[in-house]
Amino acid sequence: MFTIDHLGVAVKSLAAAKSIYEKLGLSVSPEEVVEAEQVRVVMVPLGESRIELLEPTSEDSVIAKFIARRGEGLHHVSLRVPDLEAAVARLKKEGVRLVSDGIRTGAGGHRYVFVHPSSAGGVLLELVEANR
Amino acid sequence: MFTIDHLGVAVKSLAAAKSIYEKLGLSVSPEEVVEAEQVRVVMVPLGESRIELLEPTSEDSVIAKFIARRGEGLHHVSLRVPDLEAAVARLKKEGVRLVSDGIRTGAGGHRYVFVHPSSAGGVLLELVEANR
Repeated sequence: MFTIDHLGVAVKSLAAAKSIYEKLGLSVSPEEVVEAEQVRVVMVPLGESRIELLEPTSEDSVIAKFIARRGEGLHHVSLRVPDLEAAVARLKKEGVRLVSDGIRTGAGGHRYVFVHPSSAGGVLLELVEANR
Repeated sequence: MFTIDHLGVAVKSLAAAKSIYEKLGLSVSPEEVVEAEQVRVVMVPLGESRIELLEPTSEDSVIAKFIARRGEGLHHVSLRVPDLEAAVARLKKEGVRLVSDGIRTGAGGHRYVFVHPSSAGGVLLELVEANR
């Protein structure tokens, strides 16, 4: 089944951005640094999905550059798809613009691909594989 | 339980924006016009949540103005909260900036409030009440 895995939100300050969720009574994960992406992250679980707040740890990071260009706000929407290989093959065949040539593997073996915002109504769409 | 009700995405063309979801094999609802908000909408169900693609039907609409200012992309994130009255009372007490003074009622008796992006990491956050 297709579901929303998470929303990635680029923020200047985790402390400021997470406070709205704490005030709503939601549990927010402890802060964690993801060195490879030069971000400090907290997760806000929301049912089968979650919001990830991403604060840059370096001015050279993708997230810092995004904030400089666009301001704080949604950076990407991540969808769980039942079969990532099949989805990517289908999109390529249909001429959909992807950010990378194919599926990439990130931290913890996490496999993903990004669809370019020009092919998704201005939203940077990440596809990840659902656990089967 | 708190869950993501939907993501509202402002797009210039429903036909162009929905095509990525159709190519992924997702079912997309028929187009529907919401006169009160001057938008044409399609919904993409995603598990307990959905993406709503919003195309303006008038240049004066909130969505048309958003696109003129920011381009296509995410307009708002809507969260289902277990008790909307309690959530709003709590946020007001904590000094969180809301877009309206209190809870509003929209089409079909739908009750909602918007938290200003300055209080939510640059994201326009809608709160709606979960069906209990």
